Amino acid sequence: MAYVALVGIGDELCIGQIVNTNAAWLAQRCTELGFRPIRHSVVGDNVEDIVSELRRLWQQAELVITTGGLGPTHDDVTTLALATLVESPLHEHPTVRKWLEEIAQRRGLVLSERILRQALLPEGALPLYNSVGQAPGIWIERNGRALLALPGVPAEMQAIVEGSAMELLRAFRQRLGGNVLRFHTIVTAGIAEAPLADLLGDPSTFLPEGVTLAFLPSFWGVRLRLSVTASSLEEADKRLGEVRQHLLQRIAPYVIGEGETSLAHRVGELLRQRGETLAIAESCTGGLLGTTITDIAGSSDYFLGGHIVYSNAAKTAFLGVPEELLQRVGAVSREVAELLAKNVRTAFQATYGIGITGIAGPGGGTPQKPVGTVWIGLATPEYVRARHFLFGNDRSANRQRAVAAALTWLYRTLQGIPEE
Amino acid sequence: MAYVALVGIGDELCIGQIVNTNAAWLAQRCTELGFRPIRHSVVGDNVEDIVSELRRLWQQAELVITTGGLGPTHDDVTTLALATLVESPLHEHPTVRKWLEEIAQRRGLVLSERILRQALLPEGALPLYNSVGQAPGIWIERNGRALLALPGVPAEMQAIVEGSAMELLRAFRQRLGGNVLRFHTIVTAGIAEAPLADLLGDPSTFLPEGVTLAFLPSFWGVRLRLSVTASSLEEADKRLGEVRQHLLQRIAPYVIGEGETSLAHRVGELLRQRGETLAIAESCTGGLLGTTITDIAGSSDYFLGGHIVYSNAAKTAFLGVPEELLQRVGAVSREVAELLAKNVRTAFQATYGIGITGIAGPGGGTPQKPVGTVWIGLATPEYVRARHFLFGNDRSANRQRAVAAALTWLYRTLQGIPEE
Repeated sequence: MAYVALVGIGDELCIGQIVNTNAAWLAQRCTELGFRPIRHSVVGDNVEDIVSELRRLWQQAELVITTGGLGPTHDDVTTLALATLVESPLHEHPTVRKWLEEIAQRRGLVLSERILRQALLPEGALPLYNSVGQAPGIWIERNGRALLALPGVPAEMQAIVEGSAMELLRAFRQRLGGNVLRFHTIVTAGIAEAPLADLLGDPSTFLPEGVTLAFLPSFWGVRLRLSVTASSLEEADKRLGEVRQHLLQRIAPYVIGEGETSLAHRVGELLRQRGETLAIAESCTGGLLGTTITDIAGSSDYFLGGHIVYSNAAKTAFLGVPEELLQRVGAVSREVAELLAKNVRTAFQATYGIGITGIAGPGGGTPQKPVGTVWIGLATPEYVRARHFLFGNDRSANRQRAVAAALTWLYRTLQGIPEE
Repeated sequence: MAYVALVGIGDELCIGQIVNTNAAWLAQRCTELGFRPIRHSVVGDNVEDIVSELRRLWQQAELVITTGGLGPTHDDVTTLALATLVESPLHEHPTVRKWLEEIAQRRGLVLSERILRQALLPEGALPLYNSVGQAPGIWIERNGRALLALPGVPAEMQAIVEGSAMELLRAFRQRLGGNVLRFHTIVTAGIAEAPLADLLGDPSTFLPEGVTLAFLPSFWGVRLRLSVTASSLEEADKRLGEVRQHLLQRIAPYVIGEGETSLAHRVGELLRQRGETLAIAESCTGGLLGTTITDIAGSSDYFLGGHIVYSNAAKTAFLGVPEELLQRVGAVSREVAELLAKNVRTAFQATYGIGITGIAGPGGGTPQKPVGTVWIGLATPEYVRARHFLFGNDRSANRQRAVAAALTWLYRTLQGIPEE
């Protein structure tokens, strides 16, 4: 097995002012290549600490990847730590000097000593071009082990990995040989973890040798992660393929896709294919449904827009919800959810209309309608319906769950999956 | 100095399917109490790996906090690792059994063997009540060192820390004595890192002994983090207080608050104090401004709602933007931004109206209006204005930057800070 350890470098990570998102991103890329991540760690901007951490991890893993500490300021000490680790002095690398000269010229910067510090690399190190910022990535190989040092800014780190490091890692992985680890993810929505597990039955009855199954629940649904260890990528993919078929059959109505997909993405694909459109009316979610839909590039193909009717007066003025109705049944009700969906569909001349009204909390709950109560309305060319949901006490979670429920319902409607 | 190390436990963390946000949250709480976080790490669900990691970190830090692996399923092995670490067998703890019985009764669950596994603790361990889920936190002290084991679900972890662990940690910190580390954060908006640094001048001229200053930029603005090491919390706070005054004077127009605050929170406070209201019209941000405003509990006091006018037809139908104008100057223009702000203010009868129109990307750019072009309109009782912004190439970043710019502008208007 080829092991990889990921090290985040920086005081701001250590004290928790920044969340180390780089580790998860890199761990995913590494597993795609057949590496097995065994450790992440975070250390401060201190040369001795970094060196001892790298030494320790290089004994446990064939590959160590660091992020952070490659910039031009006094607290960027990763290159110094690398020089100590491989016992080589720092030299100015002519290629990096050229890159920095070009960047300085293009941006009209003075090529200061501070900027040129970023051209200092240990002997034998390979610099990797940074198309987004200044500091290059650094690749070092010693005695069959590799170290990849990357900047801490996620966009720069990702640009270097996608630009050149991915190929180096792939080649290194092949040279290592041995068993590989592969994953495949099936994304579900509209079913909780426990009933999903019941539907699948005892894993030991359907999982081939070397394959494991994990349940990863979130507000958006449950992702099923299959992992397999095998002697080659081909063998791994073959075993994953078999069990994948089995799973897809058992839980078909709940599967929205595989790999890196999302509800909003899938709903968008379906609407685009059918040449249909969507408009929304949001109360308690305050724009989160619109945000989620328009996170997807190209969503203007099918998303026309919506009304954020946070106040009761706005529900009346823009979506024709009668004051009398609001007083009689309340804003959080079947009737209002249906009217929101129906009238926003008509107002935007859209194929589908969604209305969300609820009590996100922490205030506003009553014994009859506790915090977490949400009504969602869906209007289609054929009918208008509303459904009731009771989520929990957490404002942010309730808002996300409401958006997930609305998109799940629309997804199932588009796919012709019957309601439960 | 009292050191703390944070360990995330779980295969899903290791392979990067979940970002370890718990470490940053805990590191912040620990620094508030005067602990210095020196290491974060992530290990998989493997007893031997966990034990060796905990042994190693207990040598470096007086306090180790773990998250994850306390649940009821076969891959939850943290308690087993703790038992190995402190060389004590697992016993059913009567208090935890009672808690689990109560939870099972309340939720109508069968009190299965699987659930009762969570009552097994090493001898001498103190269980900490979990008000959100089942698995209790675990506190262990041995030879002047402490270990706190918490569930991995952030809401459960946070509930236990805020419910009981914070007090245990505070008392433990006092028993340890020695130097303390304290932080204070000043939150700015509307100014980039470099001009802010220029405004402050050379830190060596105003930073007292033992105090350091870090710049933490994000889409929302730059946070300034002051850190100090001192012999007591009082001494630390005194030194921080002096330099804080100096900083606040130098950069007053850009300071929006201190500690854990945000633009949306501050804008909301000001609107509520003044009894004023806000309505919004969003195009490229698709609901993100509304989401950001309504993330704040109680925002219905001042936020009336808005229109998401993603399509041109919606801009015409709901906010009176003439088709002729859209054809002549385009949707992303000063004229349209002003009309959106002005007309949404009137439509909602709000004190302030904000309009956002732009090209988030990746598509839709032209040489005249490249991706990242955003026009923001602001309508007040006195005037209607619009401002032009040119952000970058990243869709998600452009949307966040546009929302931050709009809120910064409204904040400065409410505070009477002149435009630049």
